[in-house]
Amino acid sequence: MKIKRVTVTPIAFRDAPLLNASGIHEPYALRSIIEVESDNGYIGLGESYGDAPALAIQNAVKEQLVGLDPFNLNQLRKVVQATVAQHKPQSVAGAELAPGSHASKAVSNAYSAFEVAFLDLQAHALNLPLVDLLGGKARDEVPFSAYLFFKYAEHIDSPYPADSWGEALNEEQIVAQARRMIDQYGFKSIKLKAGALDPEHEVNCIKALHRAFPGTPLRIDPNGNWSLETAVRMAERLGDTLQYYEDPCPGLEGMAELHKRTGLPLATNMVVTDFEEFRRSVALGSVQIVLADHHYWGGLRATQVLAHMCHTWGLGVSMHSNSHLGISLMAMAHVAAASPNLDYACDTHYPWQEADEEVIKGGKLPITGGAVKINSTPGLGLELDYDQLGKLHEQYLRCGIRSRDDVRQMQRYKPDWKQLKPRY
Amino acid sequence: MKIKRVTVTPIAFRDAPLLNASGIHEPYALRSIIEVESDNGYIGLGESYGDAPALAIQNAVKEQLVGLDPFNLNQLRKVVQATVAQHKPQSVAGAELAPGSHASKAVSNAYSAFEVAFLDLQAHALNLPLVDLLGGKARDEVPFSAYLFFKYAEHIDSPYPADSWGEALNEEQIVAQARRMIDQYGFKSIKLKAGALDPEHEVNCIKALHRAFPGTPLRIDPNGNWSLETAVRMAERLGDTLQYYEDPCPGLEGMAELHKRTGLPLATNMVVTDFEEFRRSVALGSVQIVLADHHYWGGLRATQVLAHMCHTWGLGVSMHSNSHLGISLMAMAHVAAASPNLDYACDTHYPWQEADEEVIKGGKLPITGGAVKINSTPGLGLELDYDQLGKLHEQYLRCGIRSRDDVRQMQRYKPDWKQLKPRY
Ligand SMILES: [Mg+2]
Ligand SMILES: [Mg+2]
Repeated sequence: MKIKRVTVTPIAFRDAPLLNASGIHEPYALRSIIEVESDNGYIGLGESYGDAPALAIQNAVKEQLVGLDPFNLNQLRKVVQATVAQHKPQSVAGAELAPGSHASKAVSNAYSAFEVAFLDLQAHALNLPLVDLLGGKARDEVPFSAYLFFKYAEHIDSPYPADSWGEALNEEQIVAQARRMIDQYGFKSIKLKAGALDPEHEVNCIKALHRAFPGTPLRIDPNGNWSLETAVRMAERLGDTLQYYEDPCPGLEGMAELHKRTGLPLATNMVVTDFEEFRRSVALGSVQIVLADHHYWGGLRATQVLAHMCHTWGLGVSMHSNSHLGISLMAMAHVAAASPNLDYACDTHYPWQEADEEVIKGGKLPITGGAVKINSTPGLGLELDYDQLGKLHEQYLRCGIRSRDDVRQMQRYKPDWKQLKPRY
Repeated sequence: MKIKRVTVTPIAFRDAPLLNASGIHEPYALRSIIEVESDNGYIGLGESYGDAPALAIQNAVKEQLVGLDPFNLNQLRKVVQATVAQHKPQSVAGAELAPGSHASKAVSNAYSAFEVAFLDLQAHALNLPLVDLLGGKARDEVPFSAYLFFKYAEHIDSPYPADSWGEALNEEQIVAQARRMIDQYGFKSIKLKAGALDPEHEVNCIKALHRAFPGTPLRIDPNGNWSLETAVRMAERLGDTLQYYEDPCPGLEGMAELHKRTGLPLATNMVVTDFEEFRRSVALGSVQIVLADHHYWGGLRATQVLAHMCHTWGLGVSMHSNSHLGISLMAMAHVAAASPNLDYACDTHYPWQEADEEVIKGGKLPITGGAVKINSTPGLGLELDYDQLGKLHEQYLRCGIRSRDDVRQMQRYKPDWKQLKPRY
């Protein structure tokens, strides 16, 4: 079996005006959709970053994949390494919140984009669900968490009609957002994206969630936007309401010190984002839970290596997400299903994406009982809807955004807005 | 696809009177040969430890595998874990030199025995070489090293005619052994099993090898039988003749101290034998090269996790062996071929096994140019020769050995022989 065609299609889909440590989401989120077709007619799918530097590497790599054996992932890695070495990509401004967009992640992120598609293609050709190439199901369905955001009612200058979620800035609105998300999807744990508003207020919102959903595991994620002192002070106010405390303050050293001072379990997708940082973090005792993300950890198998390493060092494993569609959701679900200790409910932005903006046939994937079911259809079990792909590619061409920049976007609302690390 | 039949056949094959830190090899080495057959007629093969405690677990596990999906390795692991928890196996006396025989390794060692057979079965059913399920070939052939032993001309009480290698106790005899092994197999590096005779004499033999084979990478492995002081003293005498210094002295702390004092690259299959020890070793800086061995590291995929971890911590990876036949050799070769940084020539006892005592069709596998070629036949590319399997099983029944014990065997030569740690 040889690869005969590879396509990389950049797409843009509507994204809600969600607030975070950097600023606010732009009206459109970018992704790339990867198709790898074999000479015997099977297609493997992947989904990855759609920012310009990531796309440039993906496009440069794709030309070199025709003729390759899709089982030879070692060869894929060599191609990606050589291509990145030649292109020397730059980090994008928004890389802060999307570790996969860092230039240092160029190899693992481009490798992952194609590795998922190669594995999906393998599994299709072998007539196996992808999970079976990863060790088989350790669980039949993968739990995700309700991922709450502070948000405005609509984007500045109304590029399109407001989303149906409305404003969420105060406690009542956040609880209402959680209620709707739980009612609709059955989530059994809740994460609040923080670092956007005053820390005391954000902690009050956690307390409101704690009262409204007693017993439901809660997480707060200020994206490293609190100083160590603020993080310690908020820890005191939070008491034992949290399942884990995600990236409250910056740096491996800061997190290590925070854990020493509070004893709280700390999670991260900011200070441990590659194996080198893992190595440094275990020496420092920085974190207790690592949020995996195959998009920047170097693919599904590398995510399993990470999970194994977490087991060895007695760390928990959860999963990070950026704005994404169904191919990424299903890839996340398959690798989580095959990894026994990846047992925290995973993050996903999927509920924030609009029902009419999925690129896979059948529209958005169901999340029921807070979980994604792993079924036994070949590969990821997905097919592209080419009308939808065309529509979202048109939207990409039209929208004008080529790299995520939440800071620049917030400056449209607040001209004196600056990136600060940490802000509070 | 479901598993419909699993067999575990203990075998014994002639083993030469090889000297080591514990004593001397017995006249027969034990292994188990695993067959896993699917309901659609494919067979996967495995080879593992044949000591009584290992066999007991393998036999208890095998009964529970019928009906299982051979792609569900996570389910296999659960079965093995539950079985080991119930049986609480004991370590065997000879476990010292075969880390896989330690009771603490019971799960990873039984899991591996079947994991290899499951993966071989998967690959046969998928019509793929096994290496393709492990990421594809990073290299077309896997180099092995000439594994030299001090030895007697024949076993005590002559249980069968003497082997063709003759005595090897002095420098000339060791050089002659190396010469024959290199002439016959084309090995490009040399390992001397040490810890058996006087350390000065063993170092003299390395120096003789260095003179006889200038430029050939050399390794010495005293199996932790030298004190730290002896290891430092021998390091001074060895100078820069070694590629790596394998387990000269015992303990993670001892090895760390030795490295600090000598700066020599230290390799091990004794102080880093599982992921927990890996974790401790990197904190201490104990070793620079880890010798992988899928038989006790928990299978082929776990060996790849180990290789990835070695990459993360900047350690080299080589491979350990015990007395084994062709199924193990080919499994070692496939995982090494798929692991880019498993690039040291691997250890193998294979040349010590007799030509008429292989259980695979076609007899002993070729090692040419010092390497095992990975070919593209399905799975490991091996089929059992049932006549040979029957013959070696008969030999197992007849030979009376049920657990390796090199100390007890040496006491037949030297009644006052004792296990000492370290002896020198
Ligand atoms: Mg986060
Ligand atoms: Mg050794």
